[in-house]
Amino acid sequence: MAAPALSRLSSAVLQRAASASRQSARLADSVPREVVDDIFSQALQKQTGVSLKYMLDFGSNPIERQLVLSAQFLHNELPVRLAHRVAELENLPYGLSAKPHVLKVRDWYVESFKELRSFKPVKDHSDELHFTKMLENIYNRHKNVVPVMAMGVADLKQELHGVGLNELPEIHRFLDGFYLSRIGIRILIGQHIALHEEQKADHIGMICTKCSPVQVARDAIYDARSICMREYASAPEVTIYGDPNFTFAYVPSHLHHMVFELVKNSLRAVNDRYDDLDAEPPPVRLVVAEGDEDVTIKVSDEGGGIPRSGLPRIWTYLYSTAQSPLPQMDTHGDGSDGPAILAGYGYGLPISRLYARYFGGDLQIISMEGYGTDAYLHLNRLGNVQEPLP
Amino acid sequence: MAAPALSRLSSAVLQRAASASRQSARLADSVPREVVDDIFSQALQKQTGVSLKYMLDFGSNPIERQLVLSAQFLHNELPVRLAHRVAELENLPYGLSAKPHVLKVRDWYVESFKELRSFKPVKDHSDELHFTKMLENIYNRHKNVVPVMAMGVADLKQELHGVGLNELPEIHRFLDGFYLSRIGIRILIGQHIALHEEQKADHIGMICTKCSPVQVARDAIYDARSICMREYASAPEVTIYGDPNFTFAYVPSHLHHMVFELVKNSLRAVNDRYDDLDAEPPPVRLVVAEGDEDVTIKVSDEGGGIPRSGLPRIWTYLYSTAQSPLPQMDTHGDGSDGPAILAGYGYGLPISRLYARYFGGDLQIISMEGYGTDAYLHLNRLGNVQEPLP
Repeated sequence: MAAPALSRLSSAVLQRAASASRQSARLADSVPREVVDDIFSQALQKQTGVSLKYMLDFGSNPIERQLVLSAQFLHNELPVRLAHRVAELENLPYGLSAKPHVLKVRDWYVESFKELRSFKPVKDHSDELHFTKMLENIYNRHKNVVPVMAMGVADLKQELHGVGLNELPEIHRFLDGFYLSRIGIRILIGQHIALHEEQKADHIGMICTKCSPVQVARDAIYDARSICMREYASAPEVTIYGDPNFTFAYVPSHLHHMVFELVKNSLRAVNDRYDDLDAEPPPVRLVVAEGDEDVTIKVSDEGGGIPRSGLPRIWTYLYSTAQSPLPQMDTHGDGSDGPAILAGYGYGLPISRLYARYFGGDLQIISMEGYGTDAYLHLNRLGNVQEPLP
Repeated sequence: MAAPALSRLSSAVLQRAASASRQSARLADSVPREVVDDIFSQALQKQTGVSLKYMLDFGSNPIERQLVLSAQFLHNELPVRLAHRVAELENLPYGLSAKPHVLKVRDWYVESFKELRSFKPVKDHSDELHFTKMLENIYNRHKNVVPVMAMGVADLKQELHGVGLNELPEIHRFLDGFYLSRIGIRILIGQHIALHEEQKADHIGMICTKCSPVQVARDAIYDARSICMREYASAPEVTIYGDPNFTFAYVPSHLHHMVFELVKNSLRAVNDRYDDLDAEPPPVRLVVAEGDEDVTIKVSDEGGGIPRSGLPRIWTYLYSTAQSPLPQMDTHGDGSDGPAILAGYGYGLPISRLYARYFGGDLQIISMEGYGTDAYLHLNRLGNVQEPLP
């Protein structure tokens, strides 16, 4: 359901953006005329999607020639994707476009767009090395997009206080599409950069060809229980059901991110429920299922669940339990989208769902009020689903 | 999501029906002019929804005066509901309206409409008894609506062979709305009739004020395992988790119907998967969760699941594993919608979902390919949700 809605929004936004490019006062205030024209012209170009399988085929032998081809693709593709987002950022409803934090994000996109467009064609290995250097700068520039955008949305939310969570569906759709696009851009750049680094065993760039979901889950559980220990001085057990020797091609850092998020939520729910009780908290259960189409990871807890009426809230970007809109910035220093960035922002689940959807999977959550919650992380096993392009 | 879609369809259909009533060739062929006009005039009236709580309050003291009031309400309300359905049946796409089985269903609705409209106003106990006699006839007349309509849809499906399951969303929406409306009509009539019968302990008509989901689940499991035994000569165990003493107000026959359907599916999946294996089949697990808003019943199996791409199929009325379109008719003889009617028609899950939604609940199913399936039956506990009226 989400994909058609996103593309509807996108084309509508782009049409408005294109026809309104001449009156685009805000952007034209800070950017030269010819750059504005170039952005809106690039925003009318079609984005080109890739698949996990394509990335594997492409990166399987990272000789110089392949890196040059990759750089040439990115040199064409990235400005188109960035321009789509700038056009979108110029046309947000409820005055969101004019919020200082949103303008800051927009300026990062414009800056990276300009750098890419002024880079001369990549012809040889030397060009490619310079290009990759520039990509690293861009990757770093955009590392705080999610928390800064969240601050812009928090500003809007404060302005519109009293507005129900589900009354701003276009903001939700925009953010879903915007963050999904960001995941795609960062994977393309991250993968290109990673191909320059020393390859880990069974890795092609960021992709592990023999990713063991049970092993990744073990690491994510370890991290989630450590955080839980710090917060509560105790952490429920997590039981894993699945074959540790089963592997498939996936991006382990994404998988870790998603499983960490689900397990962390389950540990919290169980701890909160059993805080005052003498009873031993029931273990969280994690099941890894191997299907032909999907690998599914289920995380089940008996943490009391939430009422059905409260479920939409877990997917919204407009709800947060945090008191003040001061998100943590990237403390990793490496530009990675580690979970720490989003702590307390309630963005963990919607962003995790986008990570799953990016490679054709999904994240579903069903809660039984008075009992517990089950989360199902579906991961497309074939990897030949083309990336969704909002 | 379904409710707005249904009401959109309904109002669109009614508008067309109303404006097209003069050219309505088919209906006018077999029905006098003044009846056609009366039907379309009643189809423009608003339907009046009731809630479980309303039925409980109304029926809590079934003295004669209350029965007269109930009859007066039904005398007004039922023709409106029947007329909505006739108008809808006249305007189905793809020529479905002209299929003989669909015309047969339409004629039942017209016949019952005429009987109700020609009944004189209910003023006293004697009128009410006659009125209830008529209701019994109507209830009986409509008992085979689901299988006969299914035959009409099967005819259409045969005609359109090669059409994908998801390519006829308007047929699916129509059937969802049509069957949901039928549930409402049969509850209103069934409840009125039941108030005349000797009241079982803790019952107000069909509603049990102290319905124990664990107890109902036990009975449904017994029935499902008996059927499974007949088919496979063996049946996996079913383990129940929940408090047998917990009760809430619900219609036990509906609950039995839904749980039977879910458990039966799980037993089949487990048996099919473990048919050739020497291993002991894992038990089906049934959990009853008590929340403040909902009672949730989860049925989990390790029957191997189905791929995510196959999931839409379980909710469609257009898919059936049955070879020939010859549904079993009501063998109960009592007009009840027992599961036997729909055996092999693949209607079990979509109809069960409608039963759940009728009182504000829902039925969700998530499958893990290569592992098993979880079904979540949410039952609204407050009972003050007004019935959905397509």
